[in-house]
Amino acid sequence: MAAAETFPDLFLRALRREPVPRTPVWIMRQAGRYLPEYRATRAQAGDFLTLCRTPELACEVTLQPIRRYGFDAAIIFSDILTVPDAMGLGLKLDEGIGPRFDRPIRSAADVARLGVPDPNSDLRYVMDAVRVTRAALGGTTPLIGFAGSPWTLASYAIEGGGSRDFKLAKGMLYGDPATAHRLLDVLAEAVSVYLKAQIAAGAQAVMLFDTWGGVLSTAAYAEFSLRYMARIVDDLAGTVPVILFTKGGGAWLEMQAETGAAALGLDWTVSMGAARARVGDRVALQGNLDPAILLAPEAVIRAEVGRVLESFGPGTGHVFNLGHGITPDVDPTAVAVLVDAVRELSPLHHRTA
Amino acid sequence: MAAAETFPDLFLRALRREPVPRTPVWIMRQAGRYLPEYRATRAQAGDFLTLCRTPELACEVTLQPIRRYGFDAAIIFSDILTVPDAMGLGLKLDEGIGPRFDRPIRSAADVARLGVPDPNSDLRYVMDAVRVTRAALGGTTPLIGFAGSPWTLASYAIEGGGSRDFKLAKGMLYGDPATAHRLLDVLAEAVSVYLKAQIAAGAQAVMLFDTWGGVLSTAAYAEFSLRYMARIVDDLAGTVPVILFTKGGGAWLEMQAETGAAALGLDWTVSMGAARARVGDRVALQGNLDPAILLAPEAVIRAEVGRVLESFGPGTGHVFNLGHGITPDVDPTAVAVLVDAVRELSPLHHRTA
Repeated sequence: MAAAETFPDLFLRALRREPVPRTPVWIMRQAGRYLPEYRATRAQAGDFLTLCRTPELACEVTLQPIRRYGFDAAIIFSDILTVPDAMGLGLKLDEGIGPRFDRPIRSAADVARLGVPDPNSDLRYVMDAVRVTRAALGGTTPLIGFAGSPWTLASYAIEGGGSRDFKLAKGMLYGDPATAHRLLDVLAEAVSVYLKAQIAAGAQAVMLFDTWGGVLSTAAYAEFSLRYMARIVDDLAGTVPVILFTKGGGAWLEMQAETGAAALGLDWTVSMGAARARVGDRVALQGNLDPAILLAPEAVIRAEVGRVLESFGPGTGHVFNLGHGITPDVDPTAVAVLVDAVRELSPLHHRTA
Repeated sequence: MAAAETFPDLFLRALRREPVPRTPVWIMRQAGRYLPEYRATRAQAGDFLTLCRTPELACEVTLQPIRRYGFDAAIIFSDILTVPDAMGLGLKLDEGIGPRFDRPIRSAADVARLGVPDPNSDLRYVMDAVRVTRAALGGTTPLIGFAGSPWTLASYAIEGGGSRDFKLAKGMLYGDPATAHRLLDVLAEAVSVYLKAQIAAGAQAVMLFDTWGGVLSTAAYAEFSLRYMARIVDDLAGTVPVILFTKGGGAWLEMQAETGAAALGLDWTVSMGAARARVGDRVALQGNLDPAILLAPEAVIRAEVGRVLESFGPGTGHVFNLGHGITPDVDPTAVAVLVDAVRELSPLHHRTA
């Protein structure tokens, strides 16, 4: 694999649905535990949050997969829960247990106490990491900033961590929608200023991760998740492209495309071709290989990459990615197979004509 | 609520999309831990598997929600994992841990050892429960039989229990598809003869639970899950209506409708109206209230029931249900509110304009 063949603007051109010689590729959680160099830097930091909060180390792990694979985009190493943490909820990230908040949000009084963090002081470590990383990339690879969606952050804030059934969070949506809307409102404002600050610090595109939008009904998704993401996209109009990703949200692509986002992330349950037929005249599409395929034999990885490319079909507007984050047990060689396959096969599948 | 207003054929008429005076209603896991009378019978049995394997007790818990709410269908109390258990995998069901198999299926040799259980000997306790329950219902309420889908059973068999990422099961699909197909083939045959035996014993409709179809890509769903369900629907042609339910399968309703199933189950992420527009001229639709709504205030339950009914719109072909099983923490009063709301509101929403 030749890192030399990186084209600096491939990713941004594909987001704008402009012609590209091949399909750009990056993968969610590309800076992660499957990489031995990541594990070494993580060990040096001591724990995950220290790694996030030390700009030089966050920069280092952001660059590692770029060096190894020559991905067409870097995504700043951070966590979606930095925002509620900066709002005073007290984040704990213990491996194997998942994220926990010391002070979850359960009542109107809890919500009333929340303010919008100042990204340049309360979340300065993220802005520093973006600045350092953008400089280190030296214009060879574009840098993506990101945040959690208001609903996803609210669900963690209300549940006090991860959840299987989201009973407390849905309990607030259905039992006290006024309080839920106030919480989502302050989170949307916090995410908006946070992303604007990342853009000011050097992020060339931003992604909204709506990890838990897919647990809602269509009506609840529109009212409690999409509405607030649409407001953020509006706030960012005229800055950089926004990628909107609702895991499990394949039923709602038309609604998502109406937000004005430049691109939609797709998980692997959605057919790329069907998604393109529905919304591809309005947005670029990012995705969507099942991360589990990275555990299969090399020939299968290559064939399945080809299947995603073929499903998208000819023309531009595709950013190759997984349908969700890469898992820690993947062999780094499998990722090289994926990247090589996208580089080799995409000019065949995505050629115009 | 008046159990007296039960119409014996409401459910079967709605499955055939024939006119009904109101929408029939039952709920997945209606015989379950949210009911104090269930907990008492369960305590009497000692454990879940003994409850399944004692026809008189399985009959009793099947009837309990019918007595309390006058649901329009009863579903035989059992478990989808009875089939792989009868194939010799050694099922353990410990509360709080989830199902486990002593002897998971990991290789071609493991698959080669599997045979199709004789439902009238190996699974006789299920057939006895169906017979006893059908007789006890006395023609007032139709009885539903059920089974897990071949893919869902395969995923439990391969993983050796539940899973978050289905790595072992997907590992077989992608790494050794020939073995996966042999496993799915024997499971499809086992499910087919199992459901035929339930029908012979008195089941008046059957439901296929594809709990884990939604973790697959579109191509993998078609090849490894839907194809085998379609074969079962074919095998059952001319017997009783089949309800096919893939949780998280809302993207694939058109493909599901082509199997010849009488009805499709929908989870709550799908808009009932949008689903009807896509396939409602070919199948009935069953669902799809978010079970979390049963934890909300009564007025919200009533409003959300109305929203589902309104979304379906005028005419027949709707069986009201939850989008997934009821959870143990629901107050039984909330279920009464749901049932009353369906009875009162459905004649308004579903009238033929």
